[in-house]
Amino acid sequence: MEGMKGTSWQQRYSAPEIYTIRCRISDKPGMLARLCSVIGELGANIGEIRQIDVGEGYKIRDIRVYLAEKDTLKAITERLDNSEGIKVEQVIDDVMEIHRRGSIDVKSRVPIRSLTDLRMLYTPGVAEVCKRIVDDRSASWDYTGICDRVAIVTNGTAVLGLGDIGPLEGLPVMEGKAAIFAEFVDISAFPLLIDTKDADEFVETVVRVADGFGAVQLEDVAAPECFEIEQKLRDKLDIPVFHDDQHGTATITLAALINCLKITGKKAEDCRLIMLGAGAAGIAISKILLEFGIGDIVVYDSAGALYKGRKEKMNPYKKELAEITNKNNQTCSFEEGFSDKDIFIGVSRPDMVSKDMIRVMNPDPIVLPLSNPLGEISKEDALAAGAAVTADGRDINNALAYPGIFRGALDARAPEITLQMQIAAANKIAELAPAEELLPDILDREVHRQAANAVSAAAGK
Amino acid sequence: MEGMKGTSWQQRYSAPEIYTIRCRISDKPGMLARLCSVIGELGANIGEIRQIDVGEGYKIRDIRVYLAEKDTLKAITERLDNSEGIKVEQVIDDVMEIHRRGSIDVKSRVPIRSLTDLRMLYTPGVAEVCKRIVDDRSASWDYTGICDRVAIVTNGTAVLGLGDIGPLEGLPVMEGKAAIFAEFVDISAFPLLIDTKDADEFVETVVRVADGFGAVQLEDVAAPECFEIEQKLRDKLDIPVFHDDQHGTATITLAALINCLKITGKKAEDCRLIMLGAGAAGIAISKILLEFGIGDIVVYDSAGALYKGRKEKMNPYKKELAEITNKNNQTCSFEEGFSDKDIFIGVSRPDMVSKDMIRVMNPDPIVLPLSNPLGEISKEDALAAGAAVTADGRDINNALAYPGIFRGALDARAPEITLQMQIAAANKIAELAPAEELLPDILDREVHRQAANAVSAAAGK
Repeated sequence: MEGMKGTSWQQRYSAPEIYTIRCRISDKPGMLARLCSVIGELGANIGEIRQIDVGEGYKIRDIRVYLAEKDTLKAITERLDNSEGIKVEQVIDDVMEIHRRGSIDVKSRVPIRSLTDLRMLYTPGVAEVCKRIVDDRSASWDYTGICDRVAIVTNGTAVLGLGDIGPLEGLPVMEGKAAIFAEFVDISAFPLLIDTKDADEFVETVVRVADGFGAVQLEDVAAPECFEIEQKLRDKLDIPVFHDDQHGTATITLAALINCLKITGKKAEDCRLIMLGAGAAGIAISKILLEFGIGDIVVYDSAGALYKGRKEKMNPYKKELAEITNKNNQTCSFEEGFSDKDIFIGVSRPDMVSKDMIRVMNPDPIVLPLSNPLGEISKEDALAAGAAVTADGRDINNALAYPGIFRGALDARAPEITLQMQIAAANKIAELAPAEELLPDILDREVHRQAANAVSAAAGK
Repeated sequence: MEGMKGTSWQQRYSAPEIYTIRCRISDKPGMLARLCSVIGELGANIGEIRQIDVGEGYKIRDIRVYLAEKDTLKAITERLDNSEGIKVEQVIDDVMEIHRRGSIDVKSRVPIRSLTDLRMLYTPGVAEVCKRIVDDRSASWDYTGICDRVAIVTNGTAVLGLGDIGPLEGLPVMEGKAAIFAEFVDISAFPLLIDTKDADEFVETVVRVADGFGAVQLEDVAAPECFEIEQKLRDKLDIPVFHDDQHGTATITLAALINCLKITGKKAEDCRLIMLGAGAAGIAISKILLEFGIGDIVVYDSAGALYKGRKEKMNPYKKELAEITNKNNQTCSFEEGFSDKDIFIGVSRPDMVSKDMIRVMNPDPIVLPLSNPLGEISKEDALAAGAAVTADGRDINNALAYPGIFRGALDARAPEITLQMQIAAANKIAELAPAEELLPDILDREVHRQAANAVSAAAGK
C-alpha cells in the first residue's frame, strides 16, 4: 500500500500550513536556485512558482510553500531576507485567503438584463408560480430550489478536532462542506447555525425551517445529543436527515473496507472485527458493517469490551449496540481482543494500538486506524507489524461519500436515507476505485454522479 | 408624465402572462406576417421571434407573446392551428420555466481542482480559520460569508396580493428577491421559511439562527404581527432587521416623492398629505415622510381619519401614528379630506379615489395611488382630474431600494438600519433619476452601488 497513488499525494500534501511568499529577487544567475535551497533546507515543500513582475535588475516571484508547522515560516522569511539579492515583500496565508468573505455565494440562475426578466423572476410573474404551489404543494419540487437544497445544520459542539467551539466559529467548516456540495454535485447547501445546546430546542428550530429544504445534513453535533437530535428529526420530517459524522464516515469506511476485503481475499461473513471507539462514528460504522454482512464485531471503549449486560459507562446507544455485536460476549482486555480478529477499525484517539497487538491478529489483517489528525497506529507501524492493507483518516474522507448520497436522495425525492442507500453508495464507490487502490479520486465528478445514481436506484427499493 | 420612459416600459410590459409559442410554419411568402396578424388581432403583444430549425419546406419558430390574461393563449393557439400552413408544436410558459428548479443557486467561490484546493477549503486547512474566529469573534466578518449574507425570512402570511398562502407557497417570491440581491449588489441572500404564525415562536427561531447572517430581511409577514416581530428582533439582534414591505416601500416612495416635489416646485415642509391605508406600508411611509420633513399627514383607514383620541378600530401602532400625524385633529370624511392637501398617497385597495376628490386638492397635486395590482385611481384619471404628477405601484418598486440599503448596511457592518440611512438611500436614488423622471433605471447596477455608498456613509452618523 505504501506506493499507492491514493496515499502518496496525501503524504505529500499533509502539511497543513500553506503560504505564498512574494520575493523581490536580483536578476542574476543562480538566484532562484539559492532561494529554493534556503526553503528546502528548512524542510518546507515548494509548490507553484509564479513570476509576477520583471523590473530593471529584479524579478518579483510568488513561491507557494507547504509547511508542517507555522514556525517554519518565520525561519524561512528570516533566512531569505538575510540572503543577498533576495527580499521578502509579502507573505500571504493562502488558507485564510481562500476563506476571505466565505467560500460560498448565492447566485441568481436567471440573468436580469431586461425589465421582462425582472417581471418574470419577481412581481407580477412570480405570483403564478406561487399559485401553482398553492394548488399542488408537491409542485414546489419543480418550481423552487428545494430539489437541490440541503441545510447543513450545526450547533458547533463537535467541530473537527476542535471540540465545542460554537456554531459561528464552526461556520468555515460548514461553508467548506457547502462548497464541496456545489462543486461536486450541484447541490445548493446552506449553513444553518443553531445557537442552542438543548436537543429539543435544536429539533424544534430545524423543524420550523425545514420547509425550505429537500434534505438536512447534521454536522459537527456532539454525541450523545446527536443521536437524539437525528432520531427526533427523522421522526418529524418527511425529508432525509443524515448526520454526516456518523453515516458519511460509515459509508466511506465501508467502501474502503470492501476493497480491503477484495485485496486480501477475505469474505465479509467470515471476518471478525475489533473496533475501538463507541461514539457517533463507531456506532454508525458498526451498524452499516453488520448490515453489509461482516461476521462479528467487538466494540471497545474506555471501559473495555461492549457486551450484553455490561453496566459501566453505558448509555442507550451503547446498550443497543451491545445487543447486535459481540456474539460470544467476549470480555477480555482490548490488548487480548486482537487475537482471532481479521480487521481493526479505530475511531478513538492517536497511539492507542501497538505493533504487538497487530501481530496477534489473523493472517493478512486489515488495519484502519481512522482517528484524526493521527491514527491509533501509524500506517508504517501497521505495515511493519504485518498488516496486509492499511488506511488512515486522511485516506478515508467523508467528502467522497456525502455529496453522492445527498444527490441521489434528492434525485429520488427520497423521504429518508436508508442503510441500503448508503451500502449502494459504498459498493459503487468501491467499484470505481482503480485497481489496487482502496478508493477512487475524490475530484472525479463522475464518481459522485455514479454514486448518486446508485443511491437513487436503491431509494426505490 | 404620460410620455415618461419610466412609465412607458411598464405599460408595455404590464401583461403578466408571458409564453413562447413554438410553431411549424410552411416556407412560403407571407406566412410570418399571417402568424403575426393572428396574434396581434387577439390583443397580444409579440416579443422576440427566433428561428429554431429549418426543414424541407418548413421552418420552426419560437414566438414570445405577452398577454393580459391567460384565456387569450387558448384563442391564439386555436386560431394559429386553424391557419393554413401553421401548426403549433409546443407552448412554453416562460414565467414557470424561469422558476423551474428555483431561481437561485449556492456556488463555491473557490474552484476545487486539486487536492490542495480541497485541503485548504476543507480539512485540515479550515481548522486554522475556525481557530481565528475562536480567538476573535469579529473575524467572522472577514473569514466567513456573513459580510454578504442576508436571511430573507417569512412565514408566508401576506405574500404579494395572495394573502396568507404559507411559507413554502411563498418561496418563489423569496427566491426572486434573493436573485435580485445577487444580481444587483452581490449579496448572498437565503430564504428562510418559518413555519409558525406565532410572533414569539417566529422571533425565537430567527434569533436561534441569526449567527449565520449579517442582516435579516423580513418579508411578506402580515400586520399587525409584523410590527411586533420586527421590534422584538431589533431588540434582540445586533444586526440589521428590516421589514421590506414597510421600509423598502417607504424608502422608494420617498425617493419618488422627492422628485415629485422637485417637478412641482413644492416645499416638503409646506405640504399637507392625505394617506389612505394605515397598515404596514402606510405607517412606515408616514414615519419616513415626517422624518424627511413633510408638513403634515392625515391618515385614513376604514374608520375614517386617524386622530388623537379615536376609539374605533385602533391598535397600538395606529395610536402611535395618531400622536405624530394630523396636527389639527381633522375628523372630516375621506372625501372631504382632500381639500387643502398637496399630496395623496394610497396604500389600500383599487378604485377608492374619484376624479372629484383630486379636483378639490391644492394646485398641482401629487397623486401616488400605490395599491397593487391596480391603484386607488388610475393614473389616466388622476391626470385628467388635474394631477401634476402621478405614479402607481408598478412605477415604484421596492427592488430599487432594498438591495442598496442592505449592501450599504453590510458594508458599514451597521447594527441596524435607521431612518436616516433610509432617507440617505432615498435622496441618492432620487438624485440619480434622469431629468423629468421620478426614479432611475432599476437595472442600472451603478444606481444600487451609489445608494449603498450613501447608506454606508449615513450609518456612520
